[in-house]
Amino acid sequence: MASSFGTLFRVSTFGESHGPAVGCIVDGCPPQVALTAEDIQVELDRRRPGQSKIVTQRKEGDRAEILSGVVDGQTVGTPIAIIVRNEDQRSDAYKEMETAYRPSHADYTYDAKYGVRAVAGGGRASARETIGRVAAGAIAQKVLATNLPGYQCLAYVHSVRDIMATVDPTTLSRELVESNIVRTADPMAAEKMIALIEEMRKEGNSVGGVVECVVRGVPAGLGEPVFDKLEADLAKAMLSLPATKGFEIGSGFEGARMTGLQHNDEFFTDEAGKIRTRTNRSGGIQGGISNGEEIVFRVAFKPTATVLREQNTVTRDGTATTLKARGRHDPCVLPRAVPMVEAMVHLVVCDHWLRQRAQNA
Amino acid sequence: MASSFGTLFRVSTFGESHGPAVGCIVDGCPPQVALTAEDIQVELDRRRPGQSKIVTQRKEGDRAEILSGVVDGQTVGTPIAIIVRNEDQRSDAYKEMETAYRPSHADYTYDAKYGVRAVAGGGRASARETIGRVAAGAIAQKVLATNLPGYQCLAYVHSVRDIMATVDPTTLSRELVESNIVRTADPMAAEKMIALIEEMRKEGNSVGGVVECVVRGVPAGLGEPVFDKLEADLAKAMLSLPATKGFEIGSGFEGARMTGLQHNDEFFTDEAGKIRTRTNRSGGIQGGISNGEEIVFRVAFKPTATVLREQNTVTRDGTATTLKARGRHDPCVLPRAVPMVEAMVHLVVCDHWLRQRAQNA
Amino acid sequence: MASSFGTLFRVSTFGESHGPAVGCIVDGCPPQVALTAEDIQVELDRRRPGQSKIVTQRKEGDRAEILSGVVDGQTVGTPIAIIVRNEDQRSDAYKEMETAYRPSHADYTYDAKYGVRAVAGGGRASARETIGRVAAGAIAQKVLATNLPGYQCLAYVHSVRDIMATVDPTTLSRELVESNIVRTADPMAAEKMIALIEEMRKEGNSVGGVVECVVRGVPAGLGEPVFDKLEADLAKAMLSLPATKGFEIGSGFEGARMTGLQHNDEFFTDEAGKIRTRTNRSGGIQGGISNGEEIVFRVAFKPTATVLREQNTVTRDGTATTLKARGRHDPCVLPRAVPMVEAMVHLVVCDHWLRQRAQNA
Amino acid sequence: MASSFGTLFRVSTFGESHGPAVGCIVDGCPPQVALTAEDIQVELDRRRPGQSKIVTQRKEGDRAEILSGVVDGQTVGTPIAIIVRNEDQRSDAYKEMETAYRPSHADYTYDAKYGVRAVAGGGRASARETIGRVAAGAIAQKVLATNLPGYQCLAYVHSVRDIMATVDPTTLSRELVESNIVRTADPMAAEKMIALIEEMRKEGNSVGGVVECVVRGVPAGLGEPVFDKLEADLAKAMLSLPATKGFEIGSGFEGARMTGLQHNDEFFTDEAGKIRTRTNRSGGIQGGISNGEEIVFRVAFKPTATVLREQNTVTRDGTATTLKARGRHDPCVLPRAVPMVEAMVHLVVCDHWLRQRAQNA
Repeated sequence: MASSFGTLFRVSTFGESHGPAVGCIVDGCPPQVALTAEDIQVELDRRRPGQSKIVTQRKEGDRAEILSGVVDGQTVGTPIAIIVRNEDQRSDAYKEMETAYRPSHADYTYDAKYGVRAVAGGGRASARETIGRVAAGAIAQKVLATNLPGYQCLAYVHSVRDIMATVDPTTLSRELVESNIVRTADPMAAEKMIALIEEMRKEGNSVGGVVECVVRGVPAGLGEPVFDKLEADLAKAMLSLPATKGFEIGSGFEGARMTGLQHNDEFFTDEAGKIRTRTNRSGGIQGGISNGEEIVFRVAFKPTATVLREQNTVTRDGTATTLKARGRHDPCVLPRAVPMVEAMVHLVVCDHWLRQRAQNA
Repeated sequence: MASSFGTLFRVSTFGESHGPAVGCIVDGCPPQVALTAEDIQVELDRRRPGQSKIVTQRKEGDRAEILSGVVDGQTVGTPIAIIVRNEDQRSDAYKEMETAYRPSHADYTYDAKYGVRAVAGGGRASARETIGRVAAGAIAQKVLATNLPGYQCLAYVHSVRDIMATVDPTTLSRELVESNIVRTADPMAAEKMIALIEEMRKEGNSVGGVVECVVRGVPAGLGEPVFDKLEADLAKAMLSLPATKGFEIGSGFEGARMTGLQHNDEFFTDEAGKIRTRTNRSGGIQGGISNGEEIVFRVAFKPTATVLREQNTVTRDGTATTLKARGRHDPCVLPRAVPMVEAMVHLVVCDHWLRQRAQNA
Repeated sequence: MASSFGTLFRVSTFGESHGPAVGCIVDGCPPQVALTAEDIQVELDRRRPGQSKIVTQRKEGDRAEILSGVVDGQTVGTPIAIIVRNEDQRSDAYKEMETAYRPSHADYTYDAKYGVRAVAGGGRASARETIGRVAAGAIAQKVLATNLPGYQCLAYVHSVRDIMATVDPTTLSRELVESNIVRTADPMAAEKMIALIEEMRKEGNSVGGVVECVVRGVPAGLGEPVFDKLEADLAKAMLSLPATKGFEIGSGFEGARMTGLQHNDEFFTDEAGKIRTRTNRSGGIQGGISNGEEIVFRVAFKPTATVLREQNTVTRDGTATTLKARGRHDPCVLPRAVPMVEAMVHLVVCDHWLRQRAQNA
Repeated sequence: MASSFGTLFRVSTFGESHGPAVGCIVDGCPPQVALTAEDIQVELDRRRPGQSKIVTQRKEGDRAEILSGVVDGQTVGTPIAIIVRNEDQRSDAYKEMETAYRPSHADYTYDAKYGVRAVAGGGRASARETIGRVAAGAIAQKVLATNLPGYQCLAYVHSVRDIMATVDPTTLSRELVESNIVRTADPMAAEKMIALIEEMRKEGNSVGGVVECVVRGVPAGLGEPVFDKLEADLAKAMLSLPATKGFEIGSGFEGARMTGLQHNDEFFTDEAGKIRTRTNRSGGIQGGISNGEEIVFRVAFKPTATVLREQNTVTRDGTATTLKARGRHDPCVLPRAVPMVEAMVHLVVCDHWLRQRAQNA
């Protein structure tokens, strides 16, 4: 259960950073959806290390192989297994960490949980684990694109430390986000963000930020009234990504400072005869169920824990020591987090779309 | 699935605000845990309407009846069913809403989902649905108290609109929180919060705020590495509560404005020989797994959607109209949200404690 | 999990024979299905003790109360909770069993599992637990009748000990089965079966038998290829009923004595242009998926464990003793098993119909 | 969900007979269990085609590669992924079946379900799908052997058509079963069974039979009282295997012909002070929970559907035609079914052992 996500469109991931391979099985995918390895590769390439100067330089081709569930370029309804071989494992670079726990990594907690000191790559806590999610998300995206006209999920870097993007939601597009290596939707802010991240890298330091995500074309009616509210599943999806510290939807924490009269979204009927809301403080979801407006949320990412500077810590037996990471590091996870956030949205929406079709077709 | 929560300690809730009863089944509870109806009633009374002048005045005794799973004051390992009869339903007060959708309520989305206009009480979107959660949480709390020495979960109102509590975490206690009707941990702020809420009620308006929660005595090792990270399950639990708009753990959104060197929690060994962190920006969880420090998170609640003022909306067929709620309303959900937040924490921690015992006993 | 069944149409049962009530929650039921308490009562009455001279004489009205999920005679898509109060508990009649384990009952195994000696009524092992199943099955049946034209599930007593019914499948009907108190489809055999059961009752003995079930109107395509094969879920459903010892589908154990040339079901196209099989040794399912033919299976029930005769056993501390049950007992569970078998079929088919609609709509 | 099995020890399989690979992910395996690829290979070799003259001659090395979850010869608590590459696919041999449905195969039902005619190898209905089960079962067996002293699961061929083995349960051993290629426990019957299977092969025909399974060393207390009864999960496990038509436990269908006085298993205390039953008509399970006796059950397998003889059938568009399979075929699935049955038992028992540890540790 622990490594599976979704009720009907269900992804199970596997693989450690320094084992032979990572990947996933997607179970429950509808048949007769056009799908090629290239559809998956496009998204993996957006997630891939080494794609630009501001991300980790680990050398990985990240080539996806589809092992099952797809025949002649279309899904056949059976489980789709995908693997990506690890190429640049360097587990010897981790020798020095064998006994000491890296601060704010999962070294200590994995040891406390499993009683095993899985040094090489931090077990499943590595960002490589997200390859399976991004691959599965690419499949979900194909299913949604085939079935929900107008479905589009656009995440972008909203801020890096204190540099905030100014974005006009109406002009937001995939092209705009992909036009700069930091994946923000504000070209002016992009330059500043890149400069900051480069500075952080030179210092062996790292920096956090916020990703905003806008989901268009989700019909009214997806989600569940109680525990599996659409925003609850999105919150879980986001907080399950490495390095995340917060989630807010619509008005979010700012909404907690408002009164009901300020906050409520009035209904009206638009020219096409569709029931709409004049404002969208609800963020596209009311009572756990989508209302047909854009779904808008933000995710906070902490600065990467790996810094190339000496830090105090303890060894496995509790002895005080210092540790200084060497080699490659990721000064800012945000640019690569964008496709991860989108992948998790695809998975959540696709799952709820299937659930809706089951109960309320 | 939609109305169930948890993998091993699993609660399923049922009931609408205006049906005969609400309640839950708890499946997977360990046997031989002391449990009485009174253990459950204590928590239901903290959640109950009419408990003070600043909450809704709906008249409900909210008496819990245990129907199964408990013999001679102890659990026997079988499902525990609990029901609470609704007493003050007044569904005639909802007559005028039969066709019009209340702004920022779930009226429209339920209709879009189910094709049924379940006027009376907003179906499952009413806060009465949380009775099942609070009852189940009370059971989980008993299980944890029996098995985890020092386990304690303390939520309190951190802010109401712009009035923020100043709290010394070391003196935080259940008594302090219960010493004022707004359930904050700062007596000075409490007065201001109460005054603000009373003002809102007189105006027929409502107001939002933030609940903070501190969980003590959770041993290191609970949680899962990937999708079922402890913070992911907490995020889902919180965003599944009515009126929530955001969740952040440890440093939260503020952490996104920091560098790695500022943010990392260094390890040290304390006098008792226990491995600890000097700071707790991680909020007690690293890589999805508890590290033995206090778990600290915050939840944003929007202002209640029901306001006693005329608002623009549309009828079921899309015709523009206005709607003005009458009668009782809840000017601020925060005081009653405190036991709801705690209940969801008990459920999440108990479930992960059982999961840990299964895999890593 | 342990007390829940189904993936999308999911029933969770609760209640002990000697607690205040038994019942269930059904989650995932489609909205807008006509449903009244009477629809449920009809099936509960077929399961009820005291309905004829050949079943247990426990006095229970078994009146079902719907607590949620149904408004104005139709389902609204939310969980449907149903309770039935226990009336004739007589837990004092169980006094003598407090320490000794009844042979072939669940007394010993419950104690081994939970460490609790839940004397009164054998905990969840009582046939009263099936009330929740039968109630939920009645709901599933309504959903199927509304959506699958021609859907019909007919179980009947195929044999009692060595008395076997001779049944013409084409004339099999609910009326025929209900025309005799033993619920077989052969009036001649019915008389012999009733005489045998009466003899057993007088002797304080009990007797087993086989139920056969024919399910009509299941469209081709329901079921899953691997673990959740339709026959696998039926097998689990049947073996989860109290007192069952075996399950076989289509040719069953007899099929294991045949060759492939004898066993294969040839395909042909019937006059209506529908693809059919000339024989039905497959029992309506091939590769885990329904093929549109009648689903036919048989379930073996052992003789009831409670006999009014002295038997050797041990006390909780292992001391040898004898035990003789007193009072009412059920000399043959078969007549009441018929609605239980049907209920489980409704649950399995409804669940797979929703799953099919989700993935392959 | 459809391709996953188990609640806590959870296996998800993937792969078609004629795709690049088959395999599985095992999630929830306890850490620190010794495990090598060889442990898995031993069981795969027992399942492998071409192992003797009486099974299919498809040429497959079936080499297992472990991709994750195992470091330095021990499990680390994270998902264990295993793949086996297909080598001898010959999908051109299936050309002639592209339009016609093979009788008693899953061709028609897959098409009815998914709307895709996945000719090559019958999609997931091929026995190659069981590779993932056998691999996962080998892991479960290691977990059980490590934790439950005396745990042993022994399946053997009980009958082939009308040739029945005579077996002394006390001398039953793995060595005895493996001493003959048909995997029965009666050397005399083995010769006759082999002769019959060879005759069937020459005729291009096939034959069915029954596997019996004895499970030793399961402690009292495993299983659940209601839906997840241990025998219910075993029944589902067995009926999910290809070509199975029936399951019976303990007295089985024969038990349905007995009276309660004949059938009940009396308790006594043995010399070691352990509570036992004098007979074992319950088959080691009472009320869904193991009682510490040997678990004994039987599974009926139909004759393989592929016969090398002309049969009547229809094409995809319903036109009558004939079909004659060519090349290799499996005249009797029984010898290779033995490790499949054992694998499913390991999975069921391991899952329930973890569940028991969670709730009742």
